[in-house]
Amino acid sequence: METTRNARQGRFITFEGTEGAGKTTQIRLLKEYLDSLNIDALVTREPGGTEVGEQVRSLLLQHTSLAMDASSELLLMFAARAQHLAQIIFPALRAGAWVICDRFTDASYAYQGGGRGIPEAQIRAIECAVHENFQPDLTVLLTCAPETAMRRVGDRDEEKDRFESESAEFFRRVHAAYLKRVEQDRERFAVIDTEAKIEDVAAAVRQAVASRFSL
Amino acid sequence: METTRNARQGRFITFEGTEGAGKTTQIRLLKEYLDSLNIDALVTREPGGTEVGEQVRSLLLQHTSLAMDASSELLLMFAARAQHLAQIIFPALRAGAWVICDRFTDASYAYQGGGRGIPEAQIRAIECAVHENFQPDLTVLLTCAPETAMRRVGDRDEEKDRFESESAEFFRRVHAAYLKRVEQDRERFAVIDTEAKIEDVAAAVRQAVASRFSL
Repeated sequence: METTRNARQGRFITFEGTEGAGKTTQIRLLKEYLDSLNIDALVTREPGGTEVGEQVRSLLLQHTSLAMDASSELLLMFAARAQHLAQIIFPALRAGAWVICDRFTDASYAYQGGGRGIPEAQIRAIECAVHENFQPDLTVLLTCAPETAMRRVGDRDEEKDRFESESAEFFRRVHAAYLKRVEQDRERFAVIDTEAKIEDVAAAVRQAVASRFSL
Repeated sequence: METTRNARQGRFITFEGTEGAGKTTQIRLLKEYLDSLNIDALVTREPGGTEVGEQVRSLLLQHTSLAMDASSELLLMFAARAQHLAQIIFPALRAGAWVICDRFTDASYAYQGGGRGIPEAQIRAIECAVHENFQPDLTVLLTCAPETAMRRVGDRDEEKDRFESESAEFFRRVHAAYLKRVEQDRERFAVIDTEAKIEDVAAAVRQAVASRFSL
């Protein structure tokens, strides 16, 4: 019975963490694992994932937006999210697919809340207006030392975007806000340290997913 | 005392109405009137008015966004608005200028509420998160017969945008939602019919402004 339910009903897994925490790599490896189990899984990301969302993403990440008001940034994130839910996430889950999403609403609490200082109540009001009764089935929070994250981002070839250009203090606040989210909803989170070898981290992620969904 | 207050403290006047109601023309004429009284007045518009806002405007009006989710549209409107308030409207009012704005939050109730069917409570929640205690000092709602509006929009040279391409039924709902806003806050609104000659409408707008602010 449990197996049937898992095979037929979509699950929503989100990955969170600061830049350089290892999300991209671990999402790819989790996708390979689910593929190996014949679980149909869609990988997507926020902000983005839709035509409208990718345009919002480009607006949010460009350097000329440095003067962007924090509330405006928050609303743009949720605008991309509303479109993403309506066009991608809800239809996929209804069709029985699993959805792995690179960042979701926890990131708004972490970045616009912890990072930019927007009060939690304001974020919650907008969250309620957009997806009041919908939450991830599992959220994997990847963590590492700030120095490790900085090094990983620095190793990338491309130019840093508007968030990647923020200060170490900004990322410290983002990280603290993520941990506060975990405190508020321990059941939903799996917190995994990514200082270990990639394959060991992947094993921990697989273990968290298998355990949560009785795979 | 009243004169001093008017001369030194900014006032916030918004114009509302469907496409073709005559806002652009009447805003220009009101600006000329205020200039003639040596009142420093800034004319701006929503969505838009800032670099971020104009990019959101272009995203909202483009035809490829026809598949846009209504909540996403609403949040984009408020994202542009938050930026507009922080960057343009609040600083101008603080500096003592008057601000004449082509559309503001009433338009969200009319277009995304009446037009697209988003519940009023959802719009109110986001409004509260963005500008809980800030409202226009005067809102001029310009009205005309739907046929007149259609004819005026049709006379324009440029291609119709995503909102202008909506059906007559859509505009009927927008118009009805505007009238409901008036019912809810009669004090704030001046409803002016624009079927009359442009100069007569302008005189009615001047009269409403002069009366509201004891000019």
